[in-house]
Amino acid sequence: MALARRTPILLAPGPTEIDPRVLKSMGAVAESHFAQPFCNTFGDVLTMLRVLFQSEDPNAQPFVIGGSGTLGWDFVATNFIEPGEAVLCLSTGYFSDGFEMCLSTYGARTTRMAVPIGTAPDISKIEEALRAVRYKALVVAHVDTSTGVLVPLKPLSDLLNRVSPDTLFIVDGVASVACEDLRFTAWGVDVVATGSQKAIGCPPGLSILMVSPRALKVAKTRKAPPSTWYASLTRWLPIMENYERKQSSYFATPPTQIIHALHTSLTVMLSRPLEERFRLHKETSARVKAVVEELGLKQVATHTEHQANGLTAFWLPDGLTSKAFLSKVSAKGITFVGGMQKEVGHMYVRFGHMGYSAVSKEEGHIDKGIKTLREVMMEFYAGRSNDSGFAYEGTFTGPARASL
Amino acid sequence: MALARRTPILLAPGPTEIDPRVLKSMGAVAESHFAQPFCNTFGDVLTMLRVLFQSEDPNAQPFVIGGSGTLGWDFVATNFIEPGEAVLCLSTGYFSDGFEMCLSTYGARTTRMAVPIGTAPDISKIEEALRAVRYKALVVAHVDTSTGVLVPLKPLSDLLNRVSPDTLFIVDGVASVACEDLRFTAWGVDVVATGSQKAIGCPPGLSILMVSPRALKVAKTRKAPPSTWYASLTRWLPIMENYERKQSSYFATPPTQIIHALHTSLTVMLSRPLEERFRLHKETSARVKAVVEELGLKQVATHTEHQANGLTAFWLPDGLTSKAFLSKVSAKGITFVGGMQKEVGHMYVRFGHMGYSAVSKEEGHIDKGIKTLREVMMEFYAGRSNDSGFAYEGTFTGPARASL
Repeated sequence: MALARRTPILLAPGPTEIDPRVLKSMGAVAESHFAQPFCNTFGDVLTMLRVLFQSEDPNAQPFVIGGSGTLGWDFVATNFIEPGEAVLCLSTGYFSDGFEMCLSTYGARTTRMAVPIGTAPDISKIEEALRAVRYKALVVAHVDTSTGVLVPLKPLSDLLNRVSPDTLFIVDGVASVACEDLRFTAWGVDVVATGSQKAIGCPPGLSILMVSPRALKVAKTRKAPPSTWYASLTRWLPIMENYERKQSSYFATPPTQIIHALHTSLTVMLSRPLEERFRLHKETSARVKAVVEELGLKQVATHTEHQANGLTAFWLPDGLTSKAFLSKVSAKGITFVGGMQKEVGHMYVRFGHMGYSAVSKEEGHIDKGIKTLREVMMEFYAGRSNDSGFAYEGTFTGPARASL
Repeated sequence: MALARRTPILLAPGPTEIDPRVLKSMGAVAESHFAQPFCNTFGDVLTMLRVLFQSEDPNAQPFVIGGSGTLGWDFVATNFIEPGEAVLCLSTGYFSDGFEMCLSTYGARTTRMAVPIGTAPDISKIEEALRAVRYKALVVAHVDTSTGVLVPLKPLSDLLNRVSPDTLFIVDGVASVACEDLRFTAWGVDVVATGSQKAIGCPPGLSILMVSPRALKVAKTRKAPPSTWYASLTRWLPIMENYERKQSSYFATPPTQIIHALHTSLTVMLSRPLEERFRLHKETSARVKAVVEELGLKQVATHTEHQANGLTAFWLPDGLTSKAFLSKVSAKGITFVGGMQKEVGHMYVRFGHMGYSAVSKEEGHIDKGIKTLREVMMEFYAGRSNDSGFAYEGTFTGPARASL
């Protein structure tokens, strides 16, 4: 029940540190989701999301549903893809693969295009695949949070336009929306699914999606009824339309407090140009990546153009486990998190620098993160050169399983 | 973004007024869901839920998943029932029917046992149905929030034991958990699904379930794989088991702040005996129902034994629409809500008295609700006897669509 700051500064790639104004909105008093004040709040949220997603077509539709970002995968799988339809999934980490497994659970015939960790599929290979099979959808994680690999969307958009214009362009934007430039309309994206707790800067608890008019039509005219109740687009659509008109309607009770927090977060975010926000994320990212390099550490994402701006994932040197590293970092008041990619998850760590921490320099979160990273690595190197080892295990008592 | 109390006192049957201590927990600072402090919090929550549900078998399993209470229906439909299996659904209102429609969406062969509004199916009819067909599950809303009809569970439990012991006993406890006596183990309940925002007294955003060892086995040994990702029991099970052991593990990011709020709410709730809590709800309910009767109003639930203790739904007299009534009530600083049952939803209203408002007399919420109810009805009666009409419409500016 304690609320005092008992946790380190959270520099994870989500959840992220929260603007105190946003956190304050979480304490909004109970109110009816049918009452006008809440309708106004939710309506504004939906309209502001159009701006955040750079969605310029009024016939596109934002959705905000109680649940985690993962629920967005079910929403995609059950509304836009019919059982047996072919989907091309670009595999750049744990989350791309999770999305693919979710699609296949609902009966999609998925093709996983895998590449070595830290890289992204070559555009020519994707073209080849798109020419060989008539895919219902191309699914890509804009940034896979597990590896920090970014897949540039514009080239994919151009490719689809050129060789497979009927293929839906579906993007997992969990670790990219609000920290990477993502032009929903200009790039012909059909669906973006994201969560509230990453660069959007809210607590976790909302699945947020933007859906193109074309994808809406696919969902509304599908032959097989969607095998879901809670994730059904046709059930949520009138609810979202009504709330955006500031009228209540009911399918399931919305998480009113987190929607208040989202309202505050969007209001703060959109009070400045989006370009500035993306630039700040790039600058912050460049600072962190320069320090990582200076310390002789290698990023997981091998190529500059595939390195995300919201996090930096880097390999630890031999002799330094992620558990030892994270414990040491935690003892200095910072939370980074471990890797999460099968056999190598324990060999790398992730420094998150998205959302509030990235844009609010006055908080000094990133400075402290960089300082801590430097200190821990210098101590490790010093210990190694002294041949004394780096016996952190058992000495520091950080989060027991933070390396998960 | 304003946080000042701009809304009336919320006497709806959920969301409900929130204990200030619980609301404060919503402002918990960002923390990693992998870190030990959060593991401890979530672990305690799961263990405390066993007490709240009166679940005495350590092999039963609580689940806490980001989403609304409605998500619990998908969880039931996809994990415990296989396509084509027969399910008997007792229909006592909008929510029972929604649950039934959800089950049928996932392929269950449902039988809806309908009764006139305000009543509950006769136990002899249920026995007849159970003898005629081998049902995989009996599904019942302990309290249907739309009508305030309570179905006593103990007689159903006895009946199932006697005539159909293999049938799973599945309960929608959204409007009953934490305000009605619900003995999970003693009454042989297999699944209870509820939400965070009713008598549990948290903000909305969590789907909370308790599952019996027998139902767990059904889910784990089903033939058809569950057609869901986000609501898959087998995916969530290890996560819940690990968190209760205070170890992190990952399937989807939990809504950390609402889980903090739930921790506070459960801690406060369980600091007093559950019997006392149920007694306080009964006393509060009896007070409200006595006033309703005294004012010449008829409850929707026709029989005393079918009247819920967490809300009172009552018909409005001729000439008084729910819109006019609710606007008048709202102008006096109270939120009741309208009916939600097809053709007659506009003819009745609901006074919620569950959770914090019911047990914290010092707040005086219920007193204010009763006072307002009396005043509005007396004014209506006075206006009618003066033959002046009750021209509230257009005069008061309460929530525009609160009657939904």
